[in-house]
Amino acid sequence: MLLTPRELNVFIDRALEEDSVGADVTTSSLIPPHLESTASLVPQEPGVLAGLDVAEAAFIRVNPNLVFTKKLLDGDRVEGGEVVATISGSMASILTAERTALNFLQRMSGIATLTDRYVQAVDGTTSSITDTRKTVPGLRLLDKYAVSIGGGRNHRMNLTDGVLIKDNHLAALAGEGVSLAQAIKRARARAPHTVKIEVEVESVEAALAAAAAGADIVMLDNMSPANMRTAVDQIAADCIVEASGGITLDNVADVAESGVDIISIGALTHSVEAMDISLDYETKHA
Amino acid sequence: MLLTPRELNVFIDRALEEDSVGADVTTSSLIPPHLESTASLVPQEPGVLAGLDVAEAAFIRVNPNLVFTKKLLDGDRVEGGEVVATISGSMASILTAERTALNFLQRMSGIATLTDRYVQAVDGTTSSITDTRKTVPGLRLLDKYAVSIGGGRNHRMNLTDGVLIKDNHLAALAGEGVSLAQAIKRARARAPHTVKIEVEVESVEAALAAAAAGADIVMLDNMSPANMRTAVDQIAADCIVEASGGITLDNVADVAESGVDIISIGALTHSVEAMDISLDYETKHA
Amino acid sequence: MLLTPRELNVFIDRALEEDSVGADVTTSSLIPPHLESTASLVPQEPGVLAGLDVAEAAFIRVNPNLVFTKKLLDGDRVEGGEVVATISGSMASILTAERTALNFLQRMSGIATLTDRYVQAVDGTTSSITDTRKTVPGLRLLDKYAVSIGGGRNHRMNLTDGVLIKDNHLAALAGEGVSLAQAIKRARARAPHTVKIEVEVESVEAALAAAAAGADIVMLDNMSPANMRTAVDQIAADCIVEASGGITLDNVADVAESGVDIISIGALTHSVEAMDISLDYETKHA
Amino acid sequence: MLLTPRELNVFIDRALEEDSVGADVTTSSLIPPHLESTASLVPQEPGVLAGLDVAEAAFIRVNPNLVFTKKLLDGDRVEGGEVVATISGSMASILTAERTALNFLQRMSGIATLTDRYVQAVDGTTSSITDTRKTVPGLRLLDKYAVSIGGGRNHRMNLTDGVLIKDNHLAALAGEGVSLAQAIKRARARAPHTVKIEVEVESVEAALAAAAAGADIVMLDNMSPANMRTAVDQIAADCIVEASGGITLDNVADVAESGVDIISIGALTHSVEAMDISLDYETKHA
Amino acid sequence: MLLTPRELNVFIDRALEEDSVGADVTTSSLIPPHLESTASLVPQEPGVLAGLDVAEAAFIRVNPNLVFTKKLLDGDRVEGGEVVATISGSMASILTAERTALNFLQRMSGIATLTDRYVQAVDGTTSSITDTRKTVPGLRLLDKYAVSIGGGRNHRMNLTDGVLIKDNHLAALAGEGVSLAQAIKRARARAPHTVKIEVEVESVEAALAAAAAGADIVMLDNMSPANMRTAVDQIAADCIVEASGGITLDNVADVAESGVDIISIGALTHSVEAMDISLDYETKHA
Amino acid sequence: MLLTPRELNVFIDRALEEDSVGADVTTSSLIPPHLESTASLVPQEPGVLAGLDVAEAAFIRVNPNLVFTKKLLDGDRVEGGEVVATISGSMASILTAERTALNFLQRMSGIATLTDRYVQAVDGTTSSITDTRKTVPGLRLLDKYAVSIGGGRNHRMNLTDGVLIKDNHLAALAGEGVSLAQAIKRARARAPHTVKIEVEVESVEAALAAAAAGADIVMLDNMSPANMRTAVDQIAADCIVEASGGITLDNVADVAESGVDIISIGALTHSVEAMDISLDYETKHA
Repeated sequence: MLLTPRELNVFIDRALEEDSVGADVTTSSLIPPHLESTASLVPQEPGVLAGLDVAEAAFIRVNPNLVFTKKLLDGDRVEGGEVVATISGSMASILTAERTALNFLQRMSGIATLTDRYVQAVDGTTSSITDTRKTVPGLRLLDKYAVSIGGGRNHRMNLTDGVLIKDNHLAALAGEGVSLAQAIKRARARAPHTVKIEVEVESVEAALAAAAAGADIVMLDNMSPANMRTAVDQIAADCIVEASGGITLDNVADVAESGVDIISIGALTHSVEAMDISLDYETKHA
Repeated sequence: MLLTPRELNVFIDRALEEDSVGADVTTSSLIPPHLESTASLVPQEPGVLAGLDVAEAAFIRVNPNLVFTKKLLDGDRVEGGEVVATISGSMASILTAERTALNFLQRMSGIATLTDRYVQAVDGTTSSITDTRKTVPGLRLLDKYAVSIGGGRNHRMNLTDGVLIKDNHLAALAGEGVSLAQAIKRARARAPHTVKIEVEVESVEAALAAAAAGADIVMLDNMSPANMRTAVDQIAADCIVEASGGITLDNVADVAESGVDIISIGALTHSVEAMDISLDYETKHA
Repeated sequence: MLLTPRELNVFIDRALEEDSVGADVTTSSLIPPHLESTASLVPQEPGVLAGLDVAEAAFIRVNPNLVFTKKLLDGDRVEGGEVVATISGSMASILTAERTALNFLQRMSGIATLTDRYVQAVDGTTSSITDTRKTVPGLRLLDKYAVSIGGGRNHRMNLTDGVLIKDNHLAALAGEGVSLAQAIKRARARAPHTVKIEVEVESVEAALAAAAAGADIVMLDNMSPANMRTAVDQIAADCIVEASGGITLDNVADVAESGVDIISIGALTHSVEAMDISLDYETKHA
Repeated sequence: MLLTPRELNVFIDRALEEDSVGADVTTSSLIPPHLESTASLVPQEPGVLAGLDVAEAAFIRVNPNLVFTKKLLDGDRVEGGEVVATISGSMASILTAERTALNFLQRMSGIATLTDRYVQAVDGTTSSITDTRKTVPGLRLLDKYAVSIGGGRNHRMNLTDGVLIKDNHLAALAGEGVSLAQAIKRARARAPHTVKIEVEVESVEAALAAAAAGADIVMLDNMSPANMRTAVDQIAADCIVEASGGITLDNVADVAESGVDIISIGALTHSVEAMDISLDYETKHA
Repeated sequence: MLLTPRELNVFIDRALEEDSVGADVTTSSLIPPHLESTASLVPQEPGVLAGLDVAEAAFIRVNPNLVFTKKLLDGDRVEGGEVVATISGSMASILTAERTALNFLQRMSGIATLTDRYVQAVDGTTSSITDTRKTVPGLRLLDKYAVSIGGGRNHRMNLTDGVLIKDNHLAALAGEGVSLAQAIKRARARAPHTVKIEVEVESVEAALAAAAAGADIVMLDNMSPANMRTAVDQIAADCIVEASGGITLDNVADVAESGVDIISIGALTHSVEAMDISLDYETKHA
Repeated sequence: MLLTPRELNVFIDRALEEDSVGADVTTSSLIPPHLESTASLVPQEPGVLAGLDVAEAAFIRVNPNLVFTKKLLDGDRVEGGEVVATISGSMASILTAERTALNFLQRMSGIATLTDRYVQAVDGTTSSITDTRKTVPGLRLLDKYAVSIGGGRNHRMNLTDGVLIKDNHLAALAGEGVSLAQAIKRARARAPHTVKIEVEVESVEAALAAAAAGADIVMLDNMSPANMRTAVDQIAADCIVEASGGITLDNVADVAESGVDIISIGALTHSVEAMDISLDYETKHA
């Protein structure tokens, strides 16, 4: 993955710390330090793997002498039951790191799997699935990485890399006598010239107005696929069209059929089911 | 809540940082610094609120001059549509903090709501619902707080405050010629005397053996309610009985009817649906 | 400024720490803790002020009871000799914080002043002055804030908020058989749709090719004003044109006359002369 | 250099973080992860190198598998055009780290080069060039290291390692009825006995008084070379004499001719021109 | 030891930082960087070693190329005069790290030695010696590790892993009309079911009441050995009995003879004599 | 005290964190959040108070609404039994913070008390008592502050503020053919001119040699008072004389009688007995 080793370890260390791995009273009471084991990560259900590097880092951070061997890679599809990686070395260390490693891997694979379902649902259309900034606090880089592994694209990483003018901004500006076109002009003059200007709209009329005012991206918020199609027909030549709000696995194909370029879905990261993954041990006795 | 202001701010600062609130190019381009607004937090669906102090801290941390006024409290049940809190002050600051505040509040209220459903489902029984260590990495204290707000109890916070002997430990110890009773004795001699010793079992026989060997808590893992009842009948006088594994809203009442003391559920924190909550602005123009 | 109080304090605390303000052996040996003073910040040369909030934070962070009173604001032009702010309270605390506060204020005012000179030099043209990522390590947000106070615009804050394809990228891609148009298409498909794609070129031909291939921004690197004009004439209707490389106060007006939209200048932040500012004390004796 | 690996990495990590190297949208969109390259650091102008270890650490911190090979060392004089170091390995990693590495190396080499000019200007005299505490906030250790590489000496690292009594201290103490001699005595009794006591003066008379009162070091602030010589003649046998204030490359030789021991110059670190250094890539295609 | 490498380095880095090892003016002025030495850690008095891994980490953190060779292990008894470990490599690095390494090793060995004296004093009884939470702020994990090396057991690591109801809690609850039995019931219902409930008492009557009310552990605070024996006789079958308060090497055997299970002693960590350990150098000259 | 609020809070936060104050299962289970109490800090033995600001900060950091009222100040002598400060407000918060506050206050008062004993023992002589760098890792600033409150002076804070040439340095340099005089000259040329050069010696002859070679301070290590007097007689006019090594309350007066200027004692901070201080609660019930 793209993260530097140090960036990855920041996530790992925080999680290990809140699990008090330095004072694991079960393992330290029971497991002789030099007992060796090989443990296997085995999904218990189908899905798309994500987070193997993170799981590896959790084990290695507890004990640099553990050996993590990947049998599959991030992005690989699993059925359940196959070994995706093994960890060998001090059994005490593996036991201590287990929960932290699984917490990352299960969440990230859950995100990738959910994303994959949406991506499959719009297969054959020209729409791309993207995430949002509705990530779990503190995990944005990992949440967005898992979306990309599931075949999605990333929307803004944060408030810096894109102007997104929402209804609240527009209402406030209107009250100050600033029109949409003036707002866009103002943003274009003040924000870095390297980012685009996106405008959120809730009707076809507003979509046309935003496009006419020069928006680079028009976000159709909570509109019906029919209305989306109308908007797309009229503005897609001039700007990127994004659909957002109220999109589920049931209706995403309809949304995609409307011709929008981008479909952004908060649930990819805010409402995730962890993939069920277990760690099976085989211990070597003298 | 119990967290110190500084502990809370560690969570907030991390989330604000990954959203680059210091370089919000939309707000800084468009919203005059002195434009004032009052915004209302309004759930869009029923559930149990949790995280209002955290949301407040997110706004205050962006701008200490914002005024956050709670209309409801953590633990209050909402129907959707009511104002749970208002935030007044610089509109630019409210807009910048909005996503971070909502990300916390929506997840925590989602956890409390899910926990509440389980708690309601076992109402009238003697079972308590608890969480597990399957929390989102970096958010354990907040995840567990939200469970408690939803009416659940907290299981171990981390690896230090309780001995939990799992099948892997026992298999490894057996290979070393250490019996269950010896393992419990060893743990009792080495772990702090202030924590209890829990043993995970997968059969009635193993449950009886664990109780006979002196376990303080016996965890019945993935057992049928019928078997749980058999185990409870024979060991509940001697130890705490906990059920875990494969428990859903559909079967939790059956599990509780078996008479177990504790039902621990990983999904309370690893598979959460965020509560839908919106922030509505009312802006004051000169 | 836009930074949250905590973000600002991170800069301040780091600087106070490296100055060991908790063990100021001069002040603690000599100055009675309750001796009061009012000190005045006085520039010794003309320029544009920037960093007053940062200087204030340095004093307040050493002693929250100090009172910092601004007489002028960031962005104000000074001649030298005027009082821009006063600090009142414990003289020991003011003395301890002085160097840290001045180090920030002098650098930031130096940046604003230099930026202002460039902005003045292109006054009357359609070109905007921007910074680059050539900031002093660890101070990027403050460096870029100072540029904005001096009348400049900000280029990319970091590697996330804009695609910038340089000669090295293109050479590498060419070696892989990937054309410029393919590279742009690839970036457009993979990078967030909210950021623009900028291509660096060193000749008029390359500029035309980049524009034809769909670049949102074409950066003319180290080209003569004449060649810039030629490029602008042909591509300005289709994309933003940016000039960069080898631009000084001597030639920036010529560059601007070429019609480029953006002139980016690394020296604004990598080669700064601190503004000379002194702190004059008036002490109150019993 | 003297810094521990961890101390060095604190500087690097902070800089990498503010450049968001974990989300480099250009490189991740365009450069295949396994494309290999060798890049060469090449100064574009003459000067003295400083910061090669820091640049190396920036690359290694992004990707520990990169290989950094020094051709020259810190302190070496360059003409411009020579290869000072090469970096080999993943081209994507080199591109991501490039700006951070250069930002350190260019600033530090700029400081060393400027220091070297001052040191050359006083060659043949008995004066040493030193820095001050007017360093860029957050970079003091690196700034001062670069000065030492340029042939300068380091003045106080921070407020702990030396007593420096300035005019403001003396004025305040005078108001309390404390004479200079009493102040020095007080400092000698209270500050650690391992540090010297320096007194800043603005006239020959004050210099004589400070020496007579027992100052270990007398700092002649903004005095003419003639007056400095007068002071030196009378006090140099008893204390170290330091010149400071208003010293430039034009007058530093005159100052040195006055016989002062130390010439301290804030501009060495507060007003630095970055050395122009480029990174040239040679990419290996299959 | 159980700490992860990162946890250990947090302690080390903090100590190295407060010693400013990056600016060791003695070593950097005098010792050529490439001078090699082998230094030996030699206790100057008898005791029990603890902290060798910590000392090693201090040296390695300053210079990863140093080689630390243990001749003895944590828990080994020394007479004084024997070499317990050697450090080989850059003499400058060894000198810079020396004080930090010794500060850890001397304190930890002091704790282990003191603990060992108490453990020896109760040898042949059924009492275990434990520490308390009266550790030096910031060093709890290391302090408690040293106790365990000295043969002691660890009491609560922190406020999470055990309920301890003290006289102040009971007095406050009594004022609210809450009896001891009610308090225990309340704690049992609200605290995690994995931790035990301990009640502090100051009389035999209170001890009986606490046991009758269901306390898992009864702490006899500042009671005479005779009264302890009376309490033990009546409650030891039902709960763990702990003695605390006013216990010294002089009376600990008497306390143990009373039959208590646990004797907790704050002095093990709050009033420690550092073991005298020196570092002897042997330097290799060309 | 001199520390900034933030520096103080770094110490406090670290200690609160290791005590898991955010999850105090006793207090949260038992004490109603709004129960109010006033608690009094009462020493149980005579000594010198130090650390009241630190204790206050511990309470305030847990709950900013607590009110801490000092009845006595740092440096005040107590007999035992008097109230030195009260804390009023939420009883739950006071209970949670108690141990952390006491751990700081008891250690710091222990240091001040021990220092005071040494200072009293040399009363009437010209010797000053100083600490060393043998402080508890992570607490140096607080340890040294407590020494100063006890009437001692501070030796070097860290490796930066003073050159201290020990026998190991000299042996190594001798092997390189560098004499003591050359070593001192080298240090004087390379270390900051603001720090003094101290040389450790173990005989009268070496003391004379060090003074002759120009040492600013000569440290007599483990010498008899008679030899110290001989050395003092011959070198005290030229340099500061410091005694160190093997100095106890029994022999410190003899050492002082020898006429040395400084007596440095590691035990002041490495072998401290905590002062016994209790916290007595008075709770307000409705």
